[in-house]
This record gives sequence, structure tokens and C-alpha cells, in this order.
Amino acid sequence: MSPPLRAPSIRPAACAGLALALLLPGATPAAEPRTKPLTGAEVLAASTAADWRALDPANTLYLELPAGRVVIELAPQFAPHHVANVQALARGHYFDGLWIMRAQDNYVVQWGDPDGKKPVGAAHRTVGAEFERTLRGLSVARLADPDTYAPEVGFVDTFPVAADPAIGRAWLVHCYGMLGAGRDNDVDSGGGTELYVVIGQAPRHLDRNVTLLGRVVSGMELLSVMPRGSGTLGFYEHAEQRTPIKSLQLAADVPAAQRTELEVLRTDTPTFLSFVEARRSRHEEWFKVPAGRLDVCNVPIPVRPRSNGGAKATPK
Amino acid sequence: MSPPLRAPSIRPAACAGLALALLLPGATPAAEPRTKPLTGAEVLAASTAADWRALDPANTLYLELPAGRVVIELAPQFAPHHVANVQALARGHYFDGLWIMRAQDNYVVQWGDPDGKKPVGAAHRTVGAEFERTLRGLSVARLADPDTYAPEVGFVDTFPVAADPAIGRAWLVHCYGMLGAGRDNDVDSGGGTELYVVIGQAPRHLDRNVTLLGRVVSGMELLSVMPRGSGTLGFYEHAEQRTPIKSLQLAADVPAAQRTELEVLRTDTPTFLSFVEARRSRHEEWFKVPAGRLDVCNVPIPVRPRSNGGAKATPK
Repeated sequence: MSPPLRAPSIRPAACAGLALALLLPGATPAAEPRTKPLTGAEVLAASTAADWRALDPANTLYLELPAGRVVIELAPQFAPHHVANVQALARGHYFDGLWIMRAQDNYVVQWGDPDGKKPVGAAHRTVGAEFERTLRGLSVARLADPDTYAPEVGFVDTFPVAADPAIGRAWLVHCYGMLGAGRDNDVDSGGGTELYVVIGQAPRHLDRNVTLLGRVVSGMELLSVMPRGSGTLGFYEHAEQRTPIKSLQLAADVPAAQRTELEVLRTDTPTFLSFVEARRSRHEEWFKVPAGRLDVCNVPIPVRPRSNGGAKATPK
Repeated sequence: MSPPLRAPSIRPAACAGLALALLLPGATPAAEPRTKPLTGAEVLAASTAADWRALDPANTLYLELPAGRVVIELAPQFAPHHVANVQALARGHYFDGLWIMRAQDNYVVQWGDPDGKKPVGAAHRTVGAEFERTLRGLSVARLADPDTYAPEVGFVDTFPVAADPAIGRAWLVHCYGMLGAGRDNDVDSGGGTELYVVIGQAPRHLDRNVTLLGRVVSGMELLSVMPRGSGTLGFYEHAEQRTPIKSLQLAADVPAAQRTELEVLRTDTPTFLSFVEARRSRHEEWFKVPAGRLDVCNVPIPVRPRSNGGAKATPK
């Protein structure tokens, strides 16, 4: 029953994808002098409590599906009005009882009201475009590697970003797991009543064309396996094919005992730079030709259960 | 029941993903003078029979799953020994009755023999690495855009490739849908008894580290929705979670009436260059800021049912 040796070796690093990173206290050899560069797993194992940041319940969404909970972190520093509107929609239980109504392969899953008529309560039906913002005030952990689409790319508060210093603008990037607000042809016709998550190759041509407002932190594997819709653009052709949404709530509105307490690796630390370097040139034994390059969408930000008072997370 | 106007507008192009392109004869306006650049759908609608290439049954695999057929095109020009070995494995019914045993989110699905002991018959258990080849003799339809990972990228015979002219080498690229041969730490320990397909953001760090030998041409949505395994690296922890493989056959060994007759857009034509340009800068009404750039893994090669004697494909 155990997988053959060959099989797991395609991806030897422990911190893969959006899954919770497996942190093994003491995994870094302490006694022997180190001559080899650290692997990503070793960087994480050597991290301290200060390298991690707990999710803020006020900016965390729980999307409750029949299969489980998807945890989403919102990005008010990039889309303040969309974030506020989605918070209002969530507080008004707008999404509860609606559906995932679209799953287009290698592209997006999308949820909302198929009829587009459900009252939005205290929220707004539309919110003006927040495709980009000023670069001023942002501290970007830049990647040195060239990017196909933007002059600069990097991370701000664990979110993948692109920037154009020549015009002083920055924007969130359509990486796997990013959350966006669907819109009509009018740029100001979005607002968050329909939300989508990227489930395939980063559709970077959407950057600066639609408002991104967050990213999936855990539970991505519940969204990515949605049966693909056979209608145009992956919409389900029959209502019974849709997946019902039990609820979409702010973590702050959920009793503390029922929250999923997570923390993410901060992206403004030397530890993160070491992690990036370990991803850029993989030194696990399996790799023979380290890429020496790194795409902004190929840096899965590590997530782990929230530690208790600064102690190491318990391995699970 | 009909989706709201806003919803489908995220991706207006008809030729999306690996789905069959919807070709509407006469979709290109002929009478009025054209002032706007063509969209991808319009480029395809204006294509001729010579712009398409039928799949060669001798280099096409049918992976039969309970949910349907996955069609894979092999790339003997890049991995001749692996392709020959997988052809021998298929002819010997090696994969029939084995399982998809791994699905790691945003990474790969993988199939083979969990015990690694099934006899390989006339095939070889391992084949020497074919990570790259000489650039000589290859006609690469190059993309002008910078690539994060390689000096040059483009297409050869519909396959995404990277090249380094300074050393005269070329290799297949780990885009969504690419087929690879799992290996152990020894570079020559692959061979095709375990095969994987990329189901997420292009893991370009695997380029030149493992042998790629083909790509999924249709049916990708059957692989990408596999429930993710909860074990290390996405392996299923219980045998009953695996998806059985009914068979993996060469199209040439399947009776003609039971084949899936497909053709793909050739990548060595002016039509393909127009298609690439239409992808690079999207001119559909929804887009406001055309990217003006294009990643090699963001060019889904159009596929359609094989046309009859050069006539246009029937819209479906």
C-alpha cells in the first residue's frame, strides 16, 4: 500500500501548495556545520513566532460548503470599498443559500445569485473599480526575477502584487487562489455580489481589469475540484449541478470556539527572503538543475495552525 | 436560470482552456472594413483547414476513466525513448486496472502501480533521462515576451517549449496539462510506468529536471477535479480513494469508429501568430487594459473535432 519510492519524489518539499505546512520542530540539524543552502522546509523549521502573523478575524471570511470550510483573507489595503461591501454582504447573510454556479477548467470558480436579484440589504449592489492603487505607502518584498507581465512583482502582507514604479501604481496579481469580484463590461459594475477564485494557471491578462480583494488561505482543494460546468464559460447548465453555499461569514462573527485559527508566514522578514531563495533554487536531492528563477505565482505562502503564545505549531 | 449578464463577462473569448473551440462559420464580418484588431475567436473563425493538424493515432493516447476519455498527444520529437516505452506499456495493457493514486492541489495528478511491481512486459521499467534536447532541427514559434525562467519560449508542433540558444538546447515546459514521467532521485529512474499531469500553476522549477513526453488535448477536466489526496504529496491514504484506470491505449489500437477524431491548431502558421497576438492584447469589449504580454503557459492551443475533407468544423 505504501507508495513506491519514486512516486513522492516529484515534490519533496514539505511546504507544498496551500496546504498547512508540516512543521517539524528540530528538523534543522543543529550540531553539524551547514554547507548546503537551506531547503524551504528547513527555513520554516527554523522560523520564529515573529515570522508569522495571525489572520485578523475582521478581515477573514469563512465560506462554508457541504465539503467543509474555505478560509479567505481579505485585502483592504488594495480594495477597501470592495472589502467593506463584501463584509456588509456577509453580515447580511447575502451569500447564505446561494450557489457556486460556475467552474471553468484552468480558470475560475464563481459563486453568487444566478438570478442577480437577491436584495443586498445594507450593502451596495455595485462598487467602483479598485483595479490598482498608488504604490506610495506600500512596502513590497520584491522578487529579483523578470516577470512577463509587469515591471516589478513581489509581496505585500502575503499578497502577490505587481507594480509599475514609472507611474507609481501597484495592483494585486491573479495567482492561484486569488479572490476577485466579477463585473459586467462597465468597470464600475462589480462590487462583490459575485465572487470568483482562480483555480488554474494565473490569468494575468485579468490583472488591472477586475478588482481582486483577497486570497484563499486554506480549503482551496474544496474549490478546485468542483465539477466543471458544461455551459459557456463553465456555467452549470442545470440548477441541480450547482454546489450550495451554506454560509459566507466573517470570522469575527463566528464564535471563537468555532474559528479556524491560522497564521501565515509574514512576507516582510529575512525569513521570508530565505524562503523565497529556497524556492528559487531547490536544493532537495531530487532536483538536478535548480531553476534559479521564481515566478510570483509560484510562491505558495505557508500557512499553519495558530501557535499558542509563540510556541512552535504542533505537528499534525 | 440564465446567468446574469455580469457573470459570463469575466472571460468573453470563446476559445477558452482546453475545451473544444466553438467555431462559428461566418463569425468574421466580411463586408465591413475592419478597424479593430481581431479577437482570438475571430482568428479561429477565419482559419482554413490548412491551419489545423489532425492528431496522429500512433502518437495519441486514450486514458479511459470511469468519467470518460482523456486524449493525450505524445511528443516523440522531445522524448523519443519515453514515448516508445509508454507506447509499449500501453500495447501491453500495463496501465489497465491500475489507479490514479495521487492528486496534489495546484500541482499534479499521477497514476501507475502503487506497489511498483506489475510486470512491464515488452517495455522497459526505466528509460534514461530525456529532460532536454538539441535546439538544432527545431522550428520554434517564439514568443517575443520575456519569460521568468528561460531565455526563449515558444511552440513546436503545438507543444510549449523553452530554449537556450547560447547552449543550443531546448526542452518542453511544465504548463497546465503537460504529461510527465515520474522518477526517483536517480535521473535515469523514470521511464513512464508512472505518469503525471500538471493541474495547477505551471511548476516551471521542474523544467529540465524530469522528462515531459506529451500533453492533454481533451478531457483535462476529468483529471483536474480528482479529489485531492490527504497523504504526503497528495497521495491517497486509502486504496478505495483511488480512481481506477479502465485502460490506457494508443488511438491506433482502437477501432476507427471508437476514436475521438481531433485536430489542433498548428503553431507554425501566420494564423497562429494572429491567435497569439489576439491573446497578448485582448480586444473583447470587457477588457480595459490589454496586457500586451503573454506567458507561454497562457496560450491554450485550440482543439476541435476533426473536419471532414477540409470543410469547417461543425459548430457544436
